[in-house]
Amino acid sequence: MSDVVTLTIENHVAEVCINRPNKVNALSLEVFDALSAMGERLKSETGVRAVILTGAEGNFSSGIDLMSLQSEIASNKAFREHAYDLAEGEVANRFQKPCYVWKELQVPVIAAISGVCFGGGIQVAMGADIRIVAPDARISILEIKWGLTPDMGMMTALSRVMRMDQLKELSWTGREVSGQEAVTLGLATRVADDPMAAARELAATLVKKNPDAIRRSKQMFEAAWNTAPAETLRLEVDAQAEVLGMPNQMEAVFAQLQKRDPNFNDG
Amino acid sequence: MSDVVTLTIENHVAEVCINRPNKVNALSLEVFDALSAMGERLKSETGVRAVILTGAEGNFSSGIDLMSLQSEIASNKAFREHAYDLAEGEVANRFQKPCYVWKELQVPVIAAISGVCFGGGIQVAMGADIRIVAPDARISILEIKWGLTPDMGMMTALSRVMRMDQLKELSWTGREVSGQEAVTLGLATRVADDPMAAARELAATLVKKNPDAIRRSKQMFEAAWNTAPAETLRLEVDAQAEVLGMPNQMEAVFAQLQKRDPNFNDG
Amino acid sequence: MSDVVTLTIENHVAEVCINRPNKVNALSLEVFDALSAMGERLKSETGVRAVILTGAEGNFSSGIDLMSLQSEIASNKAFREHAYDLAEGEVANRFQKPCYVWKELQVPVIAAISGVCFGGGIQVAMGADIRIVAPDARISILEIKWGLTPDMGMMTALSRVMRMDQLKELSWTGREVSGQEAVTLGLATRVADDPMAAARELAATLVKKNPDAIRRSKQMFEAAWNTAPAETLRLEVDAQAEVLGMPNQMEAVFAQLQKRDPNFNDG
Repeated sequence: MSDVVTLTIENHVAEVCINRPNKVNALSLEVFDALSAMGERLKSETGVRAVILTGAEGNFSSGIDLMSLQSEIASNKAFREHAYDLAEGEVANRFQKPCYVWKELQVPVIAAISGVCFGGGIQVAMGADIRIVAPDARISILEIKWGLTPDMGMMTALSRVMRMDQLKELSWTGREVSGQEAVTLGLATRVADDPMAAARELAATLVKKNPDAIRRSKQMFEAAWNTAPAETLRLEVDAQAEVLGMPNQMEAVFAQLQKRDPNFNDG
Repeated sequence: MSDVVTLTIENHVAEVCINRPNKVNALSLEVFDALSAMGERLKSETGVRAVILTGAEGNFSSGIDLMSLQSEIASNKAFREHAYDLAEGEVANRFQKPCYVWKELQVPVIAAISGVCFGGGIQVAMGADIRIVAPDARISILEIKWGLTPDMGMMTALSRVMRMDQLKELSWTGREVSGQEAVTLGLATRVADDPMAAARELAATLVKKNPDAIRRSKQMFEAAWNTAPAETLRLEVDAQAEVLGMPNQMEAVFAQLQKRDPNFNDG
Repeated sequence: MSDVVTLTIENHVAEVCINRPNKVNALSLEVFDALSAMGERLKSETGVRAVILTGAEGNFSSGIDLMSLQSEIASNKAFREHAYDLAEGEVANRFQKPCYVWKELQVPVIAAISGVCFGGGIQVAMGADIRIVAPDARISILEIKWGLTPDMGMMTALSRVMRMDQLKELSWTGREVSGQEAVTLGLATRVADDPMAAARELAATLVKKNPDAIRRSKQMFEAAWNTAPAETLRLEVDAQAEVLGMPNQMEAVFAQLQKRDPNFNDG
């Protein structure tokens, strides 16, 4: 695995870092594929209960490395013809997967965003469940600058957090917003002066919660969003049926009553 | 009907009160069933044009009475095996009904929330159409504390009012928020220093509006939420077709033009 | 075409103005039909890349001209019996079309709202993609005043921008809100002291963006709102496939790199 995306795991928390600081963490094809591979790898990393997604040296990502991509387009016929193909069993293509793979993970994914987060950068960040941003972070849905529509998976998240009118204005102008304004608009969850410290604090809280309840509610929130009532009510029950009375749920109750930290089984 | 949930009706407004103040209005199985029965009863209470849902003595509800529920689980095999069953003609089970029955009512339901509103308490409140909260009310989606996922019907409302990322953070941490913050996050509609007084004022306004228009628009807002345009446009017309030109709508016009209070027929 | 709705086109921007200032731009049947016709006409107006929708002399619109409509209802049997009919190929009826036609347009539509914007006025404005309002504009979902439900097409927009609880309270009380509060509630996108100047500035920005990207993303945002992930991801790609590598997209890149204004082909 390339070192353009790094991984550390400690105390049930995986930290994934986009690591091309000399290119402001621009997303080359290598970074795309490394992010997707990292997400896939974490699916089977037993014991990881939360993921933090960030960028090296004070920036999240400046977005697609257009020059790197255009040279691939120019030189590689197979790439040109198959860039949008779906691999067996996938719903996300090669450019959507680095955003979407975080939604496929069964644990909470927190993006910690400082500095610039443009174009493909905010697309990747939208794959996270929760986005903590520095008040002065610089965020832009940038695709229109290059005459493009956003197509890297972020639409799977945007309609759950933003207003359509504000999304249209942001994406059609490519206007840059601060972290503070991003929270107002729904692009980010909340601000923190030190997003990485806040993400670590949140992750440390989450790893002490029943991982079964978090896994099933993450699935349920996505599946039951805006469904008709009978379906929504059924999905609520389906989720709980896999949680209630199971060893981890009983451990959560005992730990609570005994005022101690729980010991969950990561299965 | 048990006095753990009380009812008063005056001037077309029903006030429903969770009344176990010595237990901070905790939701025992008796309270669950009394709330559901109260909602069902109000469906046929001709003349009621608005419902206010609140809790006795300064608190909404501290949530599920876990000890009462666990003793039932331990002692009652039929309960354990059938707790999630759906009764004939129902989409909500015994635990979802105390939340969902308020959505089934054809009149506006306003929750007036002071003090604590935790777990099952906020689930019941989410069944209301409108939530008025004290700025210092204490609200928490608490299920994760006991290792559980939210499964009492609130998902039928949450995706209509909250952002998914903020819902995930709130429900996975169980973090308590103030009434003020609840409004920012979408868990509550607006703050008022005296939520009960504000709810009564709102209810007094609503009972002077055409009950047919409110009933049909309540149905339409729920049914047409996020539907495709052709369907949405059709549902708008279907609603109006049952309102326009009917005696109550004509009475609304006459009363308006004659600058007098309307006299609606509750049918 | 009647002069109750006027049109000017300059620098790729069409300005459409509701022009009945002596009636506070009230929507008579003539205005309804003129707005629909104007929208239809603009569909084939090659070169128009943005539309601004506004009202004459400092007000957007006071809403339906009820007296004009009631005289039509009283005198015209065919009108009474066919008012809700759908014309061949239409999903919106005669009263929904003046709102919905702006969503059918393939270019951004910006409503510039000052003064009063009541009832049918805010319905028409909700058809726009973006609403810029004066802080002291006066806005009301007014239908309940006449005992009616909202049925002029605005539901196709409301669930994309508002919370259901706040919509219910607004539409059931008919409460008037300021432009500033409308932005908080989602009824408007943002405030500007001079909405028309701000709309023109925004339109001037948008006409320099790739019209193919805007057209396809407008369609995609509407179609992919709250769809299941596999469908959403596919719709993203479908949109880009019609944009990427096309002459206008390449022109956007060249203009960007050469730091000059782009010259798009309006096809």
